[in-house]
Amino acid sequence: MTAKLTAAERTAALAELTGWTVVPERDAIRKSFKFGDFVGAFGFMTRVALLAEKADHHPEWSNVYNRVEILLTTHDASGLSARDVALAKAIDALLG
Amino acid sequence: MTAKLTAAERTAALAELTGWTVVPERDAIRKSFKFGDFVGAFGFMTRVALLAEKADHHPEWSNVYNRVEILLTTHDASGLSARDVALAKAIDALLG
Repeated sequence: MTAKLTAAERTAALAELTGWTVVPERDAIRKSFKFGDFVGAFGFMTRVALLAEKADHHPEWSNVYNRVEILLTTHDASGLSARDVALAKAIDALLG
Repeated sequence: MTAKLTAAERTAALAELTGWTVVPERDAIRKSFKFGDFVGAFGFMTRVALLAEKADHHPEWSNVYNRVEILLTTHDASGLSARDVALAKAIDALLG
């Protein structure tokens, strides 16, 4: 069982992330990524998939050609947890 | 430019597909796939990505853990075309 972030933890965590926005109705964070083409987008998704599987924490995500939308939340915690923040940072680190 | 299917072509095409349903508001077809886990789902997505790139025809799709939702439509044709039907068949053949 993973704990949901407290309000203070959430504020601190979001301040460390760039481009991730809160989805209040889901208690989740979301970010959109755009690439040059489908190969760029799916290559990125493959790297994220490996990160996610290793962390045993998986995104809700969608892809349309060169765009990828990623939503992170923790089902176990019924909301945003430190695992989402860690995965968001790892995803951003892929893009340097 | 790809031609949108006529009503008669559409009826014939859908009769050849299993599990694909029409999304009228998008003039698209959609199917849900379920796997044992994330690795099963993403492995399937990787195979679909290679098919799609080879066909130069890409799905709109989403994944949540072991589930994959695929929507096919042809932006060039503003609706369902023979390319969607061909890709749907190729996707189903992966699971053969």
